[in-house]
Amino acid sequence: MKYVFGIDVGGTSVKIGFLNEQGELLDRFSVLTDTSNHGDNILFDIANAIKAFIKEKNINETDILGFGFGLPGPVHNDFVVRCPNLGWDSVFMPEAFSAAYGKSVHVKATNDATAAAVGEYWQQEMNDDMVFFTLGTGVGGGIVINHKGVDGVHGAGAELGHIRVEHKHPIACTCGLDGCLETVASIRGVVGITRRLIKENKLETTLYDSDKLNPKVIFDAAKNNDPLALEVVEEVADYMGLACATIAVTVDPKIFLIGGGISNAGSILTTAIQKHYLKYAHFGVKDARFELAKLGNDAGMYGAAYLIISDNQ
Amino acid sequence: MKYVFGIDVGGTSVKIGFLNEQGELLDRFSVLTDTSNHGDNILFDIANAIKAFIKEKNINETDILGFGFGLPGPVHNDFVVRCPNLGWDSVFMPEAFSAAYGKSVHVKATNDATAAAVGEYWQQEMNDDMVFFTLGTGVGGGIVINHKGVDGVHGAGAELGHIRVEHKHPIACTCGLDGCLETVASIRGVVGITRRLIKENKLETTLYDSDKLNPKVIFDAAKNNDPLALEVVEEVADYMGLACATIAVTVDPKIFLIGGGISNAGSILTTAIQKHYLKYAHFGVKDARFELAKLGNDAGMYGAAYLIISDNQ
Repeated sequence: MKYVFGIDVGGTSVKIGFLNEQGELLDRFSVLTDTSNHGDNILFDIANAIKAFIKEKNINETDILGFGFGLPGPVHNDFVVRCPNLGWDSVFMPEAFSAAYGKSVHVKATNDATAAAVGEYWQQEMNDDMVFFTLGTGVGGGIVINHKGVDGVHGAGAELGHIRVEHKHPIACTCGLDGCLETVASIRGVVGITRRLIKENKLETTLYDSDKLNPKVIFDAAKNNDPLALEVVEEVADYMGLACATIAVTVDPKIFLIGGGISNAGSILTTAIQKHYLKYAHFGVKDARFELAKLGNDAGMYGAAYLIISDNQ
Repeated sequence: MKYVFGIDVGGTSVKIGFLNEQGELLDRFSVLTDTSNHGDNILFDIANAIKAFIKEKNINETDILGFGFGLPGPVHNDFVVRCPNLGWDSVFMPEAFSAAYGKSVHVKATNDATAAAVGEYWQQEMNDDMVFFTLGTGVGGGIVINHKGVDGVHGAGAELGHIRVEHKHPIACTCGLDGCLETVASIRGVVGITRRLIKENKLETTLYDSDKLNPKVIFDAAKNNDPLALEVVEEVADYMGLACATIAVTVDPKIFLIGGGISNAGSILTTAIQKHYLKYAHFGVKDARFELAKLGNDAGMYGAAYLIISDNQ
């Protein structure tokens, strides 16, 4: 039996999965992310944790196929352009992790949202091209074409949060542009739309503006037929539908998979996105499917592992 | 020496190229496209012309690697969804062309704009992901990722003419939607913008509205610093820049290649597109390059041949 490690590096902690070739998660552990000193310790901490695990479990090093990484920044051909959350700049992962591990090992890396896309694709046994959204603090994405994640030449492949969807009253985005999908479909975006509608005071609602206003509260109200909350769902879904219609005439996937915290809204969201998508979609792509992601926060760890497994197939 | 045939099927004629493995075009010929009887004769006419050529040139059949096709409609995995210009519906090319040829032969097929993209990519010896636009009667496109054209699951990959770029005053598109890139960046689109500006009568110009108004006249005027014609270039380039910025955060290519009749405008157009692109582009993708296609109407024939050559590598 051969094994892989799938490593999802976040700004707070690193999730490490130990999987067999068939994709079964056999064990898991995590280390805290030490962002001191430009994040120089992170790979050493990961290597040490893995070496301790291997020793404890008495695993034969020759049975390890390699180490896949999902990283919070743009990655292209295993080269990390930058990871502001980690303090990293220009890191070639095969070299850097081999140095931390103390010997030359097989390493693959991709962006964390792309890793999540690949993880869902693999674990849900999809065979057709797929586009994944993660709607959370930000809006990220991953695109899988011909069974591979699309990194893009600058590692900016599937930076879907920065598709421009609002042209009439664009809101400034953290990226420096305005009108980006992230400004309306992230947690901040959903709450922002809700606050605007509460202020406009045209729709009945049980919601009121407070620090506690969050997507869960809003989508729960929508499920209870709160008119204002239902309008929030429609607005978010309209922007998502427009973005998906644009993506559909670009890469033409079979499935749009919706993940991230906001996807906890469930089918009320995917159903609404599909409705608005059909308004904007080219006749040739109208039967694209909209589904919910299933792996939650583990998707990136699975996808990171799959980078190694698919590389060995 | 091994050979391939690259076959670009258009609504009026079929261009057939005879190439060696190195991509050199050794000979070429064409047949008229017989669209009678739902286009049932087309593949037989092509097969007969090729068989006559092979006989005449005394080519050994075993030296032929295969037959690549570029077709005017959506194609996925060598399956033609439909080609309205040919009268075709649901044709599996390997089977259909083998039947016409009289024996089982190696056949690959893709959409004609995707074939053109692949042809430019191959002949210009590109190595990085690339997005190609053909701006002509319509607006088509092709995307090359990891050295392969992106068909999309419905064969609608890179239907870039139907990215929505005009939200304020959208014009109806032939596809049934409105605001599509094709409504403003095709021949009809460029002439339409010019007519609108002439009617508005705010800018000096040597242009006047007539049946002879066409992109060449307009872009020639722009090169002579005609204020209205320069504004046409800016408007078209603004829409193109927005579309490219969206594509850049989706597949993140190194090069945007501009082809089709309108690209005869030359660098005045690519320079303007890049200027507007920089306005809309995410910070991570600003150094994408904008270049002119080089193969003109032969791109599809080359790309069709490359489908076979890349399949044999």
